[in-house]
Amino acid sequence: MRRLKELARICRGDVLKMTYVANSGHPGGSMSSMEIFLSIYSFANVDPKNPFDPLRDRIVISHGHTSPGVYSVLGRLGFVDIDQVIAGFRHHSSIFEGHVTRGIPGIDWSTGNLGQGLAAGVGFALASKIKEQDYHVFVAMSDAEQAKGQVAEARRIAKKYGLSNVTVVIDYNDAQISGRARDIMAVNIKENYLSDGWRVIEVDGHDIEQLLYALKEAVEDKVNPVAILAHTVMGKGVSFMENNVSYHGKPLTKEELEKALAELGIENDVDKYIEMRKHLPLVKHEPLKLGYEVKINVPTARTYTEKTDNRSAFGKALLDIVKANKNSETPVVVVDCDLASSVKTDLVMKEVPERFVQIGVQEHAAATVSGAMSADGIVTFFADFGVFGVSETYNQHRLNAINHTNLKVVVTHCGLNVGEDGKTHHGLDYVSAPANWLGYKVIVPADPNQTDRVVRYTASVYGNFLIAMGRAKQSIIKREDGKPFFGDDYTFEYGKIDVLREGAEVTLLGCGAIVENLVAAADNFKGRVSVLNVACPLDLDEATLRKYCDGKKVLVVEDHAAPLGLAALLAKFMMQKKIFPSHFEQIAIEEHVVSGPYEALYELYGLSAKKIAEKVAALLS
Amino acid sequence: MRRLKELARICRGDVLKMTYVANSGHPGGSMSSMEIFLSIYSFANVDPKNPFDPLRDRIVISHGHTSPGVYSVLGRLGFVDIDQVIAGFRHHSSIFEGHVTRGIPGIDWSTGNLGQGLAAGVGFALASKIKEQDYHVFVAMSDAEQAKGQVAEARRIAKKYGLSNVTVVIDYNDAQISGRARDIMAVNIKENYLSDGWRVIEVDGHDIEQLLYALKEAVEDKVNPVAILAHTVMGKGVSFMENNVSYHGKPLTKEELEKALAELGIENDVDKYIEMRKHLPLVKHEPLKLGYEVKINVPTARTYTEKTDNRSAFGKALLDIVKANKNSETPVVVVDCDLASSVKTDLVMKEVPERFVQIGVQEHAAATVSGAMSADGIVTFFADFGVFGVSETYNQHRLNAINHTNLKVVVTHCGLNVGEDGKTHHGLDYVSAPANWLGYKVIVPADPNQTDRVVRYTASVYGNFLIAMGRAKQSIIKREDGKPFFGDDYTFEYGKIDVLREGAEVTLLGCGAIVENLVAAADNFKGRVSVLNVACPLDLDEATLRKYCDGKKVLVVEDHAAPLGLAALLAKFMMQKKIFPSHFEQIAIEEHVVSGPYEALYELYGLSAKKIAEKVAALLS
Repeated sequence: MRRLKELARICRGDVLKMTYVANSGHPGGSMSSMEIFLSIYSFANVDPKNPFDPLRDRIVISHGHTSPGVYSVLGRLGFVDIDQVIAGFRHHSSIFEGHVTRGIPGIDWSTGNLGQGLAAGVGFALASKIKEQDYHVFVAMSDAEQAKGQVAEARRIAKKYGLSNVTVVIDYNDAQISGRARDIMAVNIKENYLSDGWRVIEVDGHDIEQLLYALKEAVEDKVNPVAILAHTVMGKGVSFMENNVSYHGKPLTKEELEKALAELGIENDVDKYIEMRKHLPLVKHEPLKLGYEVKINVPTARTYTEKTDNRSAFGKALLDIVKANKNSETPVVVVDCDLASSVKTDLVMKEVPERFVQIGVQEHAAATVSGAMSADGIVTFFADFGVFGVSETYNQHRLNAINHTNLKVVVTHCGLNVGEDGKTHHGLDYVSAPANWLGYKVIVPADPNQTDRVVRYTASVYGNFLIAMGRAKQSIIKREDGKPFFGDDYTFEYGKIDVLREGAEVTLLGCGAIVENLVAAADNFKGRVSVLNVACPLDLDEATLRKYCDGKKVLVVEDHAAPLGLAALLAKFMMQKKIFPSHFEQIAIEEHVVSGPYEALYELYGLSAKKIAEKVAALLS
Repeated sequence: MRRLKELARICRGDVLKMTYVANSGHPGGSMSSMEIFLSIYSFANVDPKNPFDPLRDRIVISHGHTSPGVYSVLGRLGFVDIDQVIAGFRHHSSIFEGHVTRGIPGIDWSTGNLGQGLAAGVGFALASKIKEQDYHVFVAMSDAEQAKGQVAEARRIAKKYGLSNVTVVIDYNDAQISGRARDIMAVNIKENYLSDGWRVIEVDGHDIEQLLYALKEAVEDKVNPVAILAHTVMGKGVSFMENNVSYHGKPLTKEELEKALAELGIENDVDKYIEMRKHLPLVKHEPLKLGYEVKINVPTARTYTEKTDNRSAFGKALLDIVKANKNSETPVVVVDCDLASSVKTDLVMKEVPERFVQIGVQEHAAATVSGAMSADGIVTFFADFGVFGVSETYNQHRLNAINHTNLKVVVTHCGLNVGEDGKTHHGLDYVSAPANWLGYKVIVPADPNQTDRVVRYTASVYGNFLIAMGRAKQSIIKREDGKPFFGDDYTFEYGKIDVLREGAEVTLLGCGAIVENLVAAADNFKGRVSVLNVACPLDLDEATLRKYCDGKKVLVVEDHAAPLGLAALLAKFMMQKKIFPSHFEQIAIEEHVVSGPYEALYELYGLSAKKIAEKVAALLS
């Protein structure tokens, strides 16, 4: 205890020094959370000598801007080198970035955008239960971020799944950037947690004894998830910083630093670190090691010969995989948001309920929970409609990408293919949105056979994938000899463009539900029209594009928003590679579209086989 | 009262008929909410003869899939033609789409993605207060959507701003797609509302007398926002549909319809409507009339001559506009999420606090509240960091676009220009994300002078705009004669590409913070390099691109995610228009980037003037 109190003093000095040396960062909240960090990292089952032990407790720092506080604690507890922290904080060659980063020993989740950490913690806690490994999860948060709706969603999931193995400690300093938290946006934190069925313990957040006792109580509670409200003072430990929000995101001046360190009784040795920093290399730091070996069984593919919706093919392939891995080292789990019967995860729900997680209409938390689970040793499928799994959870996936998770997002009901549900439900960005996340591969399979193989493929490799599909039944894409193109002799290869038809003059390109219409249109003009299935729009295949597009008339057809989709990706790639079609045209969606049967909408918006054939005829004439 | 009870019976028949005729739609929830809809529309100050009266009460149906119930009520109360509803429901030539649509008499907000309606209602209620027009806002919601975090955010805003003029009525039928709501994801609805300081009234949701009495109490409460928990039965009114979730999103069969209508005592006249439907035209319906005339004063532009950050230029222009319109017919308001001092809306906060709305760390609700306010007669600016104003609120903006709102989203801290805060805070999608929303124009001004003029321009025209900027101070872009390019003689024109430098061999294209580096690089090679400022990347200018890019070596430089940004937009446009550069190259961000001073990051990622000049030299050699 005495040691921890002493460390708190030293760490406060570290915080002031590293933010001064970096001339950037957040000292105020770091000082406020100091005893919380020290208590959690010393109480939890974590070992600086074996920081990535799979059975360790997990620790999520949700208010990631308090990285100076966290890094100082990790430094003083032996997880990392404190000198490297103080000299390197926020320098591009250092791993000690502005916000806490997964992969640094002691850090289980990269945060920075507030309000995400509890859902990540709930994901780890679920993973602990599913893997039957019995580790505990501690989440440190700020009070301001309690306002984020995603926190409430995460609370309910913890309660529903009886996750007494998650404990949240809230730094209740009543201060945020713009002033007192209660003035900015009052959050009745205690009442909110109680109303969602959590247990709440209140402590003095600068009293390590109280904190440790509360943590013990929380871990011993085998019924409820527990929130510890730790009342604190922003800028704690330095008189002129206390309760002064101007130090939220601003380092001290030289004079202030001198005064503050003197008050803390700490030697001012920043010159040493400034000198060290000068010699840091002008390169970016090496990527941190993340990920794990995926050890699963992939059962044999199914081949469809009758019209089938891709989502059913997905559901069946998923069931095959889940069943084949009930006892695998790497479990396979699917997360649903009250759409199981539509996205076809109801098969798993019924047959293997212990691998099915039902989160209800709480997509934000669902996406983060799924990401965290997937990072924590579970191959995780998150299935939802396009508008929810892509648009509504856009930033959650961006943050999953930053965390190098292993998530398979399967979105059904994409495009006008959804039909009657109308514009709020036409997901038109299943290629363009994930492209922005920088860390998801996108696959848009053409028919149930390709869907089946894609699902099996993505389950077996580490990394984030987004698989998009429509709602309607799809014709089986066939070779000219009538056999299924993506049948028994086909193996999915990421990035390969499939040449479905060959012709000399016009080349049609597309992916997903539209491909059967491209083939049908092309079959009116045998030998004159090629059809390319670009199932992996973010990673294009130069040789195929050169062969079938250079000097040809090119028509790209998309059941996708027009500005930035397949046509834009193709055009940029081809221009960079000096592949010049003699004509380049796009059919895609320029506006939000009305309700209607999808066949009618396809006809109205030029996506039907008939309309495409008319366009091809014009190009050929 | 008797009339309303009788109407409930008739409307239930309408619901069953229209979903049967459309062979699609959601009868279960429509039957459950029937008395709620009838009570609200008959209690509220709305007039079918003057449905767009600016002083009317506003009504938001958050569970938009209950459109059959809403449309039947609107039909029977005289807002719309019931025959057109029953025959046209979900047909592409009809305005009666799958989810309720703003612009139909009686419908104030298009919904469909659950959990958005309360925030929209709060936006209307705030607008009512700001305009001092004293109308009330009624929001009908389902119980399942109470799980969405955005609902909790909206509750807090209503409480903070004392919005006793908003009343929510919750259809508490304990049923959702996958089963009983309490099993899918238990939400302690009553406790949640109470914990956020709302008043709660519980009623039998099929008892119109109780409902009307509760609405009266709610409207008379001048202190608290009120939630009416209306206990209901899904599928109410038809014995075999009651409490049967399989009718959530499925119409009845012919036999079931016969039976149900008989039970309700309603004639089965669907053949008439089926016949009418057959004769509906195969066109999409005309867009609904939305929007209003923006009547504001736009004060004279400011011209900067010293290095200034664009966000400061924004903040000052905004202050000018807000001050000049304190007494205008169209008020100008800014919404902040606890970042006022960073996004520079603190000027308005301090000087005109009655035009400043502080929503705290609740971006989802903030974006929807802002959108609804902007639709309701207030020119609304929503200012935030790029990662929050674009990425985190992506779907909220998509829904604003669907609602044809009048929102000006100003995002600061975009790109690597943010620097040390690191990857979670580098907003890299400020062009590509809004492109997907189909209904936002994007402007990325090059310097403080252009920023100033862009802000004034967007305030003065109806429509959604996203204005993106970096964090750092920007050099003033100058003409070759040394005068500010965007100075006193410049007028912003949407879609115009600015030719900053002219040269014969290489053309550099970019927007935003990067433009000063393009100019600096080009100035090393006078007469050989053109620089084009593409401030409006979504609407390109063919003549300028043809003149400066066809046959030239083109280099596009972006502080933006590489896959889909300016280069992709340019490439697609040029390929479509047969503008063929002899060389096409892109410098942009391919991965999530480390913390570091932005100048260092620009150097590392090839975006500095020096690196760009090196690339140009290679192209010229």
